Amino acid sequence: MKRRDFLAGAGAGAIAGSGAAKAARAAPAVSSGHFEWKMLTAWPKNFPGAGTGAQRIADRIETMSDGRLKIRLFAAGELVPAFELFDAVREGNAECGHSASYYWLNKHKATAFFCALPGGLTATEHNAWIYFGGGLDLWHELYGQFGLIAFPAGGTGVQMGGWFRKEINSLADMKGLKMRMPGLAAEVLNRLGATAVNMPAGEIMPSLQSGVIDATEWIGPWNDLALGFYKVAPYYYGPGFHEGNSAQELMINRAAWEALPADLQAIVRGAAEMENLGIVTEYVANNADALKVLVEKHKVKVGALPDDVMKESFRISADVVAEVADIDDIGRRIYESWSKFRNDAVGYAPLADYGFSRGRAL
Amino acid sequence: MKRRDFLAGAGAGAIAGSGAAKAARAAPAVSSGHFEWKMLTAWPKNFPGAGTGAQRIADRIETMSDGRLKIRLFAAGELVPAFELFDAVREGNAECGHSASYYWLNKHKATAFFCALPGGLTATEHNAWIYFGGGLDLWHELYGQFGLIAFPAGGTGVQMGGWFRKEINSLADMKGLKMRMPGLAAEVLNRLGATAVNMPAGEIMPSLQSGVIDATEWIGPWNDLALGFYKVAPYYYGPGFHEGNSAQELMINRAAWEALPADLQAIVRGAAEMENLGIVTEYVANNADALKVLVEKHKVKVGALPDDVMKESFRISADVVAEVADIDDIGRRIYESWSKFRNDAVGYAPLADYGFSRGRAL
Repeated sequence: MKRRDFLAGAGAGAIAGSGAAKAARAAPAVSSGHFEWKMLTAWPKNFPGAGTGAQRIADRIETMSDGRLKIRLFAAGELVPAFELFDAVREGNAECGHSASYYWLNKHKATAFFCALPGGLTATEHNAWIYFGGGLDLWHELYGQFGLIAFPAGGTGVQMGGWFRKEINSLADMKGLKMRMPGLAAEVLNRLGATAVNMPAGEIMPSLQSGVIDATEWIGPWNDLALGFYKVAPYYYGPGFHEGNSAQELMINRAAWEALPADLQAIVRGAAEMENLGIVTEYVANNADALKVLVEKHKVKVGALPDDVMKESFRISADVVAEVADIDDIGRRIYESWSKFRNDAVGYAPLADYGFSRGRAL
Repeated sequence: MKRRDFLAGAGAGAIAGSGAAKAARAAPAVSSGHFEWKMLTAWPKNFPGAGTGAQRIADRIETMSDGRLKIRLFAAGELVPAFELFDAVREGNAECGHSASYYWLNKHKATAFFCALPGGLTATEHNAWIYFGGGLDLWHELYGQFGLIAFPAGGTGVQMGGWFRKEINSLADMKGLKMRMPGLAAEVLNRLGATAVNMPAGEIMPSLQSGVIDATEWIGPWNDLALGFYKVAPYYYGPGFHEGNSAQELMINRAAWEALPADLQAIVRGAAEMENLGIVTEYVANNADALKVLVEKHKVKVGALPDDVMKESFRISADVVAEVADIDDIGRRIYESWSKFRNDAVGYAPLADYGFSRGRAL
């Protein structure tokens, strides 16, 4: 995975290489029973949702621990660029990081299972797999190979399909389309006949304006409004097939984790779990309002992607995700656990949120 | 509200009146900085989901506080019956309770907004209103009138429509039907032409067998399987219109809450928030498996309620819920806040979980 593959804040404001990061390395405990940690984030400074939620995690840890564990937050690029977060935490240059595990496909493709998979699960379903379907143990096993441990720590909920410069009426309109798309979903798009391109946030607007790309996905109305895509791409389709939820992670250096007493471990894990629901619901609460601004003030045309595009995207997604099982033993076991859970969840969905929402819409 | 109005564990095993409860009253702090609390629950002992989740909340608080706040759990009837929990916590006979706020309709009908409303919201949407739509502040204002504070602390997710002795093919089949139904949804059922009856868990099976009732709602496959309704009512319809999520609460005596230092307050609130998602996802993870047992082993006929039943139930629900606004000022403000949020959430649903699940099912 290249530099340009990263979703947020990738190059912007990167000021420190590994030398500066090492200089900033903190001793695990500053005095008896007291700790100071650095939290790197993959988000631009004060990024609404994921970024402000990461700050709430740090604040809750400090309050619950009565100041025995203080955490200082660094936005993407302040200490290391977003895409170096994994290695910085792994090497102990920072004790923890708030990010999205599908940024680490170059470490192992199965990392995507703990963030978002094309054609996957909603936030509630995803967390049911993580907490009660075996997901968390598998995640710990995978990250353990890198000297890390991680906990679920937020999510975006369902993401929009994206912004398009021209109308999409059928699968044929996707052929030849150049579209920004991260993660395993990029491969799905390529197999649909489009051309997936990845680039960080700051490059998207000029690329849409110049015609380097014809379309882009980003997150949802609340975050998308701020970036101004409506100025150059009038068609806003949703939901997407690619992220039924894009979960965030609190990843922690294993040695730093093990240096904590049991009560502080429970507090750190707990603060992540609180915001695991907190950040998702903040997106849900803000998306509807932002959509109104896009439609009423900026005259954005909002609609669903055509059924044949959705159907084919979900079909191909199943193939792309299944290929992770061929990588190695842990990849196979993660795929099999998730796949069994997904089958059950999809089968049960007409009796759960999906069925209720459908009845409500009659 | 009468004894028999309560959902779970109402009379069963009730051993203590107010005298015993008073004798069990604990001093708020047992030694400097150390506290021992009682948590009453509205659930039978070891009740899967809500009951075992309440125990996890207590365990997490003890671990995160390094034993400075110990909480002893009491099932419904062990100290006071389920339906006396509100008053027992209010009067300080126990410091806190894990229950469902729609059990307290006799205190104020608006309590239902913090648990479940017919035709309402999914778990994710409900929590978005609570955390980021103004719900929590209104809840604190309402419970403050009773010397209580409460935090969201779990939920069942979407509940099934219920168990029926005869097939339901249209709205006409609901006329004259005697059905167990709690909360404001009972009034909806009555306006549909059915007759709502309320009774605690233990009375449902004999009532179905003797024909006192023709149908009952309970929770979902995971909890319903254990009660054996499939033996006398072969038709299992879902989802219901009545509980898109039935949220649980951690209610706390205000004086006990204020006696805690800030770090322990954050830990108590935090533990409730962790299990707010935890309990919901435990239901989601277990319902699909239990449904397979019901269908494959017990040959239960599972289906959706007819569209005209769902449509009319949702229509009447809106009227019944709106009537809470007429009670008083706080009732009106709670209704208006919730109603505005619900309109936005329903409008946005085709771009959120609902739209994603629909695309996935194509």
